[in-house]
Amino acid sequence: MSKLGLLFALVTAVVGTALADDETASGELASWHHSDARQAIVEFVERTTEPGSPDYLPAPQRIAVFDNDGTLWAEQPVYFQLLFAIDRARELVEADPELKNGAVLKAAAEGDLAAVAAGGHEALFELLAATHGGTTTEDFRRLVEDWLVSAKHPQKQRPYTELVYQPMLELLSYLRDKGFRTYIVSGGGVAFLRAWSEERYGIPPEQVIGSRLRLAYEEGESPVLRREPTVAHVNDGPGKPVAIAQIIGRRPVIAVGNSDGDFEMLRWTTTAAGPRLGVLIHHTDDQREWAYDRESSVGRLDRGLDKAAANDWIVVDMKNDWRRVFPE
Amino acid sequence: MSKLGLLFALVTAVVGTALADDETASGELASWHHSDARQAIVEFVERTTEPGSPDYLPAPQRIAVFDNDGTLWAEQPVYFQLLFAIDRARELVEADPELKNGAVLKAAAEGDLAAVAAGGHEALFELLAATHGGTTTEDFRRLVEDWLVSAKHPQKQRPYTELVYQPMLELLSYLRDKGFRTYIVSGGGVAFLRAWSEERYGIPPEQVIGSRLRLAYEEGESPVLRREPTVAHVNDGPGKPVAIAQIIGRRPVIAVGNSDGDFEMLRWTTTAAGPRLGVLIHHTDDQREWAYDRESSVGRLDRGLDKAAANDWIVVDMKNDWRRVFPE
Repeated sequence: MSKLGLLFALVTAVVGTALADDETASGELASWHHSDARQAIVEFVERTTEPGSPDYLPAPQRIAVFDNDGTLWAEQPVYFQLLFAIDRARELVEADPELKNGAVLKAAAEGDLAAVAAGGHEALFELLAATHGGTTTEDFRRLVEDWLVSAKHPQKQRPYTELVYQPMLELLSYLRDKGFRTYIVSGGGVAFLRAWSEERYGIPPEQVIGSRLRLAYEEGESPVLRREPTVAHVNDGPGKPVAIAQIIGRRPVIAVGNSDGDFEMLRWTTTAAGPRLGVLIHHTDDQREWAYDRESSVGRLDRGLDKAAANDWIVVDMKNDWRRVFPE
Repeated sequence: MSKLGLLFALVTAVVGTALADDETASGELASWHHSDARQAIVEFVERTTEPGSPDYLPAPQRIAVFDNDGTLWAEQPVYFQLLFAIDRARELVEADPELKNGAVLKAAAEGDLAAVAAGGHEALFELLAATHGGTTTEDFRRLVEDWLVSAKHPQKQRPYTELVYQPMLELLSYLRDKGFRTYIVSGGGVAFLRAWSEERYGIPPEQVIGSRLRLAYEEGESPVLRREPTVAHVNDGPGKPVAIAQIIGRRPVIAVGNSDGDFEMLRWTTTAAGPRLGVLIHHTDDQREWAYDRESSVGRLDRGLDKAAANDWIVVDMKNDWRRVFPE
C-alpha cells in the first residue's frame, strides 16, 4: 500500500470507528441532547473500556456510584421517602393515638411537611426511626411495595416510580453495557430503596447502599431480623465514601450526584489515581421538573457548583442537556 | 421408534447425564472423597441450577456465604489475624513504648497468646482497634500485604495464605462455575481479609463482609479515610445475618461455617423458604490439621453439632471427607 493509501485507510478506519461509536451511543442515550456533557461522559466511558486504550480499566474496577434522590428520581417538594414516612405515621397514629406524643411524628401524621423539614436531617431520621422501625425486614419490604402501588405524587399525580429520570435510566443501562457495575449510594434508607430498585433501575439489592437502621436477630422456629428504631448509619456527606469503603471496598471510577451531600463521594472518587469521572445533575428546568440549587432545603447544591470546575466535574444542565425528563 | 426403543433411549439419556454430571463434579471437587457430604452438596447444586428442575434458582438468587477462619483457612493455634495483630503490637510498642500501657497490647507485644485469648472477643477487639486503627485504608492494606509476604505459621512453617483448604478452594470454584456468587462472611476484619481474598480465593472486595472499625473521612488535596480505633460492627454470631441483610439485602441459598459463631447465619439461611443448604466443617483431623470442637477456645463447635441433624445441615468430616487438606 502507498503512503497515501495507508493514510487514507487509517483516516477511514478512525473516522469510521468514531461514527460507529457515536451512533451506538446516540441510540443508547436517546434522551440526551448532543451536548458537551453527554460527549464528555461518552468519551470517558470509551477511553476506559476500549481494549488498547491507555486508560483501559479491567472490568472488576468498573464501578459507578449514583446518588438516588434528585439524581435518579425527583426529590421535590420533599424526599419521597419522607412522604412514605408521613403516610406511615398517619397509619401508626390512627392505630395507636399514644404514639402521637413525639413532636415529629405528630407533625408528620398531620401532613405538616414544613415542620418536619425544618428539623433537618435529625428530625428526618427521628421520623424514619419511628415509622420504619419495629417491623421485620420482610414485613417492611411489603409495606413499601404496597405504598408504591397506591401512592401518587401530590403535584405530578403520577406514581413515584414514574418520576425517575429517563436519561439516567439510559445512562445506567449504557454503563452496564460497557461492563460497569452500577451502585446506588443514597442518603435514603437502604431497605426502602431495595423494595423497588431492581425492578425500576435494574440495580440488585447487593448494589444498593443507603442509610440504615440497626437490625436485631430474633431466634425462633423461623428466625427474623427486626428493624430497631435506631439509626445505624447516615449515608450522607462523608458517610457516603465511608460506606463505599466499608461495603464495596474499593474506590469507584464514576460518581454521580446532585447535591452537596454528594460532595465527599465525588471528591473521594475523582481524586484517586487513574481515570475518574465526577458528574453533578443540576436542576435547571422549572417547566418539566423543578429549578433549584443554592437556596433549596432539599437537594441543596452550593459548594458543589463552586468547586465543580476546579475538580473537572461535569455539570449536567437538565433543561438544556436532556430531551426528556420522565419516561412516557 | 418402538416403545422399547424409546424406553432404552430415555434410560441411556438419563444414565448418561448422571454419569457425565458425576464425572464433571469429580474433576471439580478432586480433593473430596466420594462421601455422603460431597454427594449431598453436588446434589443440591445440581437441583438448584439445572434448568427445568423444580428447585431451579435464577442466577441472581444464587448466593453462597462462607465463614473464613476454620472454614476456608486454618485457625489454630489462634486466629491468624491475631498473630498479625501481635506482630503489629510489637512494632508499635518498639516505636513508642508509651503504648505499652494497655494490658492487652502489652500481652500481645510480649507474644502472650494465652493472656489475649483469655479475654475473649472483647480483648481481641481491643487489640484489633489498637493495632488496626490509626492508619488510612490504603496504608493498612499495605501493612497486611507486607506481613503476609514474610510471616510464617509458628507450627506449620508455611505462609498463612498456604494454609487455606484445598477442598474449599475447589468448592468455591465449583459453585462459581454453577453461577453462584461466593461471599466471605467472617468474624475477622473486612480490611484484613480484602488484602488477600481476591488473589487467594477469587473473592473480590465487594463480596467480603467482616468485622469493621469506624472510618473517618478526611478532606484535603487527596482525601483519605482514616481507620478509627473503634469497632463499628462485630461480625460474629447474630452479627452475621445482620450484616448479610444490611449489605447483600437478601437471604443466601448456601451457608458454610465451622463454629458456633456461624450458628445464626446457618439458621437464618436454611429456615427461609425454597431450597437452602447449610454446611458445617468439622475439624476431625489431628494429623493433617487439628482436631477440636466442643471444648476449643478457638472455633468452638458445640451447639452446631447438637443441632445439625435437626436442621438438616451437612457436617463435613475433614479427616474422612477430604483427600487433601492444604494445597501442595
